[in-house]
Amino acid sequence: MMCCKNTNIRISLPAVCFVWQIAMIVLFGVFIRYDEESDVRKWIEFKVSHNITSDIENDFYFRYPSFQDVHVMIFVGFGFLMTFLKRYSFGGVGFNFLIASFGVQWALLMQGWFHALDPDTGKISIGVESLINADFCVASSLIAYGALLGKVSPVQLMVVTLFGVTLFAVEEYIILSLLHCRDAGGSMVIHAFGGYYGLAISWVLYRPNLNQSKRLSGSTYHSDVFAMIGTLFLWMFWPSFNSAITDHGSGQHRAAINTYIALASSVLTTVAISSMSDKRGKLDMVHIQNATLAGGVAMGTAAEFMITPYGSLIVGFCCGIISTFGYLFVTPMMEKYLKLQDTCGIHNLHAVPGMLGGFIGAIVAAAATEEVYGREGLIETFDFEGDFASRTVLTQGGFQAAGTCVSIAFGVVGGVVVGLILRLPIWGDPSDDNCYDDEAYWEVPEEEESIPPVLEYNNHMTRKHPDM
Amino acid sequence: MMCCKNTNIRISLPAVCFVWQIAMIVLFGVFIRYDEESDVRKWIEFKVSHNITSDIENDFYFRYPSFQDVHVMIFVGFGFLMTFLKRYSFGGVGFNFLIASFGVQWALLMQGWFHALDPDTGKISIGVESLINADFCVASSLIAYGALLGKVSPVQLMVVTLFGVTLFAVEEYIILSLLHCRDAGGSMVIHAFGGYYGLAISWVLYRPNLNQSKRLSGSTYHSDVFAMIGTLFLWMFWPSFNSAITDHGSGQHRAAINTYIALASSVLTTVAISSMSDKRGKLDMVHIQNATLAGGVAMGTAAEFMITPYGSLIVGFCCGIISTFGYLFVTPMMEKYLKLQDTCGIHNLHAVPGMLGGFIGAIVAAAATEEVYGREGLIETFDFEGDFASRTVLTQGGFQAAGTCVSIAFGVVGGVVVGLILRLPIWGDPSDDNCYDDEAYWEVPEEEESIPPVLEYNNHMTRKHPDM
Amino acid sequence: MMCCKNTNIRISLPAVCFVWQIAMIVLFGVFIRYDEESDVRKWIEFKVSHNITSDIENDFYFRYPSFQDVHVMIFVGFGFLMTFLKRYSFGGVGFNFLIASFGVQWALLMQGWFHALDPDTGKISIGVESLINADFCVASSLIAYGALLGKVSPVQLMVVTLFGVTLFAVEEYIILSLLHCRDAGGSMVIHAFGGYYGLAISWVLYRPNLNQSKRLSGSTYHSDVFAMIGTLFLWMFWPSFNSAITDHGSGQHRAAINTYIALASSVLTTVAISSMSDKRGKLDMVHIQNATLAGGVAMGTAAEFMITPYGSLIVGFCCGIISTFGYLFVTPMMEKYLKLQDTCGIHNLHAVPGMLGGFIGAIVAAAATEEVYGREGLIETFDFEGDFASRTVLTQGGFQAAGTCVSIAFGVVGGVVVGLILRLPIWGDPSDDNCYDDEAYWEVPEEEESIPPVLEYNNHMTRKHPDM
Repeated sequence: MMCCKNTNIRISLPAVCFVWQIAMIVLFGVFIRYDEESDVRKWIEFKVSHNITSDIENDFYFRYPSFQDVHVMIFVGFGFLMTFLKRYSFGGVGFNFLIASFGVQWALLMQGWFHALDPDTGKISIGVESLINADFCVASSLIAYGALLGKVSPVQLMVVTLFGVTLFAVEEYIILSLLHCRDAGGSMVIHAFGGYYGLAISWVLYRPNLNQSKRLSGSTYHSDVFAMIGTLFLWMFWPSFNSAITDHGSGQHRAAINTYIALASSVLTTVAISSMSDKRGKLDMVHIQNATLAGGVAMGTAAEFMITPYGSLIVGFCCGIISTFGYLFVTPMMEKYLKLQDTCGIHNLHAVPGMLGGFIGAIVAAAATEEVYGREGLIETFDFEGDFASRTVLTQGGFQAAGTCVSIAFGVVGGVVVGLILRLPIWGDPSDDNCYDDEAYWEVPEEEESIPPVLEYNNHMTRKHPDM
Repeated sequence: MMCCKNTNIRISLPAVCFVWQIAMIVLFGVFIRYDEESDVRKWIEFKVSHNITSDIENDFYFRYPSFQDVHVMIFVGFGFLMTFLKRYSFGGVGFNFLIASFGVQWALLMQGWFHALDPDTGKISIGVESLINADFCVASSLIAYGALLGKVSPVQLMVVTLFGVTLFAVEEYIILSLLHCRDAGGSMVIHAFGGYYGLAISWVLYRPNLNQSKRLSGSTYHSDVFAMIGTLFLWMFWPSFNSAITDHGSGQHRAAINTYIALASSVLTTVAISSMSDKRGKLDMVHIQNATLAGGVAMGTAAEFMITPYGSLIVGFCCGIISTFGYLFVTPMMEKYLKLQDTCGIHNLHAVPGMLGGFIGAIVAAAATEEVYGREGLIETFDFEGDFASRTVLTQGGFQAAGTCVSIAFGVVGGVVVGLILRLPIWGDPSDDNCYDDEAYWEVPEEEESIPPVLEYNNHMTRKHPDM
Repeated sequence: MMCCKNTNIRISLPAVCFVWQIAMIVLFGVFIRYDEESDVRKWIEFKVSHNITSDIENDFYFRYPSFQDVHVMIFVGFGFLMTFLKRYSFGGVGFNFLIASFGVQWALLMQGWFHALDPDTGKISIGVESLINADFCVASSLIAYGALLGKVSPVQLMVVTLFGVTLFAVEEYIILSLLHCRDAGGSMVIHAFGGYYGLAISWVLYRPNLNQSKRLSGSTYHSDVFAMIGTLFLWMFWPSFNSAITDHGSGQHRAAINTYIALASSVLTTVAISSMSDKRGKLDMVHIQNATLAGGVAMGTAAEFMITPYGSLIVGFCCGIISTFGYLFVTPMMEKYLKLQDTCGIHNLHAVPGMLGGFIGAIVAAAATEEVYGREGLIETFDFEGDFASRTVLTQGGFQAAGTCVSIAFGVVGGVVVGLILRLPIWGDPSDDNCYDDEAYWEVPEEEESIPPVLEYNNHMTRKHPDM
């Protein structure tokens, strides 16, 4: 090893983990309480006051199956999608696990302060929908991690997540509450924001000599199969992602159908472009692992609207093509001309499809008619109530488009600022010739080409006596 | 490479994907609409007209968790079960992904035309049950893929799926609607049909010199572990498969219990026979990966009936034995004497247990009594309503048996016809010495025995600059 | 191979499987019936008698999604967590599959006799909650397997499971019914019992020359990634584990929230301690794979109580630390001084956190107030009804603590007895130099360093002609 940078994080990583976890305990103690559907006393009172006869009407039964699907997407989906590198699988799945676990706690607080703070008691009430929203919130930081994979230290990732969750909560508040946009699956607030946030950080952290780690920047046969676990769990559960917090009843039902259809369409166009781009028609695992998901990203806003099944097919069709072209042309060009290194290609999977999804949502909202939705349905779908009772669908479409721009602006500006913070020489990040290498932050088992014969005792990697 | 056949699919695969996907968009535009539980306007009206007070009675909440389990079985279950070959894991999981994604779209149309076409409007209404049925439908083509694994091109697989879904929709209409059979978990319509369909295709496509690819026809240690992911997700979620579209209430409840019990029993007899068959009592991963699932296949028809828990145990007991014996004796003999090469052994896992499941269902139906089911229960379970109000359980049993024969006939005849189509020399299939090899259709990363030292730049497999 | 012990199980394993499976069929025939929610006739009558208007109130819809999550934990979670050894992945996931499949059947009977036997008819009624409980019951034997991994034969594991399930049913009856403890997620009855049961067996089976197998006692890069599949599915679905059989409504809702929060906290403290313990701050996969789960184990009893979100955070915080310290110091010391070899470190993941979870539950129960729970909520949460209507929370806390001691006593005493049985020289266990090796009980594919060239036919590991 000729790396000269110090990647020792023995002080900084434990310090960050302990300080932040203790801060979480204190803040949870001050602020977080069960909501009226998860508190035993309040739920009994709630049932009486709302004339509910059966426990099955607890929000838990509407949302818990979708929550668990989303949870799998966050930890197994994102985690395993990032195991594709030949020697960074531990970091891919392990750091994803670490920052998601921290992020959801901070998200419960940040989102709680903006959306669920009781002004009388000063307390935040949480229920299953809060857990889903926390998972959603942290997804944007995991997307950003995709651009940085292999090039940053876990301490830096904790910082990315701390600021990512904070920025998310603010832009979400502006977009959903102030602009009153609808964005149940988060094309804007999750994917466009997270994508541009990660790209901006990666741009600031540009490594001119990253090709010194080129030997480790590819995949192996089995690491590509591991990554397919991530891809498939993301793909299969995306209908749950886009429907998890939509309206009870037809809203969840329709969002799941639309997403299912769009994703199926993405797969075919991804395969088509991937095959066309090789002179012998061979498919590229990078495309199959990523671009097949673009339809789900792009349906994040419009899935709950009456976009129609063929509308969903068209969205998936186009986004599969656009995303695959991105992997073929845009990512290499961005690295060459923009000096932007994007390890997982989040530009093509999250940033662009997320942005498109925001605008698709705007168009579909603007095109909504009372004939299709019904009067009551329009109110229900777009929440035209209270201060927004008189808003028209055309205005709504305009605000949806504006929301998309807000999310991108937050991502770019926030990412640049966070990137500058991460350039401080205190974070234990790897040197250019030491990227994409689990050796820097993990005890890696020695790979034995052949299992040594019986009675040879000199193997010092054992399960039960880890080196101290 | 000394293969002489041209496996270049740069024109044909993109052409097929684009043409079919565009056709899907047009046909969805003409035919497919949301049903009354997923359309925002219709659901509001439906609640009023049916006096429904809570959104929890939307069919989404009855079926969505089961749908997601089935979805995992289709994409991760079938996909990873087919990763066992040492150098065909990309093709196993990747082509499964491709054809399932195409198949579900075509299935929504085909099944819609037969079962959900509104004669007044000419439109097909879809909801969550349609998605489950589409997944079921495509399962039969994925089963057929199991017999063909490693020996066909992705273009051929698209043809297999196009015809497979079409034939499925017709046989399903005959069996479920005309013969009025019950087959919620698809022993007949999915497994027996899909199994014999794949076997017939494979028989027509017999490769006399396939042993030229023998070096690649086995597994490696880690590919066998990958395949266990597929096995376990199929095994765990099979109760959801068999209960996903059964009657609300006790129907779904009972189908899940029966399947759970039958599967547990299959595991023990599979292990017993596998151990007995080796001279030192060693277990064979092929059996554990496959025959353990036979109990689920065989319960596909009877799971919703009152087969009793010990009846389920007996079914699992017998099918574990039969299926393992199939792997030990029947598959080798079929290859030797019938000239039928069955890569995954679908004969033993799907064709025979599916056929047995059909007949078991017939027997259990014929043995149904008013004492056990109650008068109302008999009507609910067997749908003795409308034109079929006067049918007796004995007649029902006869029709169930007839339905099994129909499904087999469709599989065999359809498979022979499709096999002949696939023998046209235009599909880009591999030569005999090039089977089971991902190199034919995938850009495969170069395997490095040892990671080269720092500062060596000649690795040309990188994530960000794929060859064009 | 120079092993001298005979690991041939060609007679014993099939014999045990067949005898026990046939016994299951007979006993199921005599005892097991559908309950009133899964029997078509009884459910129709039940709806009338209980004035239920919608099938959605069938217990299936309250519990089935959680059941499937628990099912994944048992088969994929525990199974893949045990694939970490370089050459025992087949045994890890395969034997887990075998003994869980047997165990759930025996558990349905044992738990049925104690909890669901109708005194009039002599029959056991089963429904979805019975399936969850059977999965729970078998979890304790799988935990015990963790201590024995690689050192016992599958026949011994069947014996461990037979006695493990039996002991579980008895201690569960004493703790839940006689002592009237609450333990929905099983800190006491599952984890403390299972942990000490496995440790006691392993202690009795001490192998002084186990270091002769040291070459196989570590992991490889990819086997560690496989194990992360197990870790993550356990981690993600633990909220379902702890909420699966709690009270409908706020009970399930609150248990899921508390567990989610505790687990997130465990991850951060595990990472902190793991990093601190290495001189360069590197993380150890052993800790990430295991100690991150400690918060879920420790919330098994208290999750359904009003422990408050910050209380959950504190539990996770402490248990992540304690568990990681266990892996660092206690496991090596136990091996050295106590002569106790614990392959997976279940002492640190199950035994100690389970015991702590029991006492945490006792404290939280004793601290319950009518102010927080409400009068009706106290009765609902602690089942202060019937014979226990007059019990105070303080008494309840005392009984909870007593229950924890009972579970540990059952584990230790039962484990010693079972360990002595397993020392009989009839079980086909491996010799000391043959442990951790799949070769003993599995046909293992030959690993080819490089795929041989085309036209070489001498590979004799093929899919379709297994050696007989």
